[in-house]
Amino acid sequence: MLTRIDHIGIACRDLEATVGFYSRTYGFEVFHTEVNQEQGVREAMLRINGTDDGGSSYLQLLEPIREDSAVAKWLAKNGEGVHHIAFGTADVDGDAAAIRDKGVRVLYDEPRRGSMDSRITFLHPKDCHGVLTELVTSAESQSGPH
Amino acid sequence: MLTRIDHIGIACRDLEATVGFYSRTYGFEVFHTEVNQEQGVREAMLRINGTDDGGSSYLQLLEPIREDSAVAKWLAKNGEGVHHIAFGTADVDGDAAAIRDKGVRVLYDEPRRGSMDSRITFLHPKDCHGVLTELVTSAESQSGPH
Repeated sequence: MLTRIDHIGIACRDLEATVGFYSRTYGFEVFHTEVNQEQGVREAMLRINGTDDGGSSYLQLLEPIREDSAVAKWLAKNGEGVHHIAFGTADVDGDAAAIRDKGVRVLYDEPRRGSMDSRITFLHPKDCHGVLTELVTSAESQSGPH
Repeated sequence: MLTRIDHIGIACRDLEATVGFYSRTYGFEVFHTEVNQEQGVREAMLRINGTDDGGSSYLQLLEPIREDSAVAKWLAKNGEGVHHIAFGTADVDGDAAAIRDKGVRVLYDEPRRGSMDSRITFLHPKDCHGVLTELVTSAESQSGPH
């Protein structure tokens, strides 16, 4: 079950400049940074609020590190802006399987590693009224009792 | 101070079909519907989670009711997808003034009426790294002690 807006993924050309904008304009602080080689991005997570499922909602700022990454191609076509939205769940495997059974294309056979050791998958935007949609199980949810 | 992701605004061509998608695929329920004549949209708010500032995070599904509305023009250019993001604050007037003083264009001179009797304003996407950004003070925040 999807229990929160986990993050909004925003593609940018210059991560430091974009972090600077969000910090100066709104006072949002960097919670975490990392490089995801598989996704071909550098990223900064800005934590905005806690959520009533025990998680958090973030902005995820993404700068491509390779021209052949999905985010680089998206930026070349669309310019800077909202790249995807992500819903949090305690069970990304179960939810992805259930959603696939409803006829929505799930982009990965198995969830992959996302920000902060989360497990993620994506749904095809053409099956989601134009919205690239991510499902996330956070590291905290994975390490909980099973 | 912006204390939550209040909503993600998603532009669609057929509100009922898009509500149906979110309901069938994820189990999200309609919390509120309304027509905003000034903005030229019909909309459905799907409540996703509560937030630790006492508010909520929603998906806001938007269908234009006039071809000259901003959302209709945006849809004609971009197709269905994420139209804007919105941050919640207890003081949209004060935050909008402070952000204007930082050189970011605020689109309204005074906040206007948004979903569920909220007060809203928008920031120019070109000043926000491509993201049309809304600031929202909910009706509950307005009716609280001053």
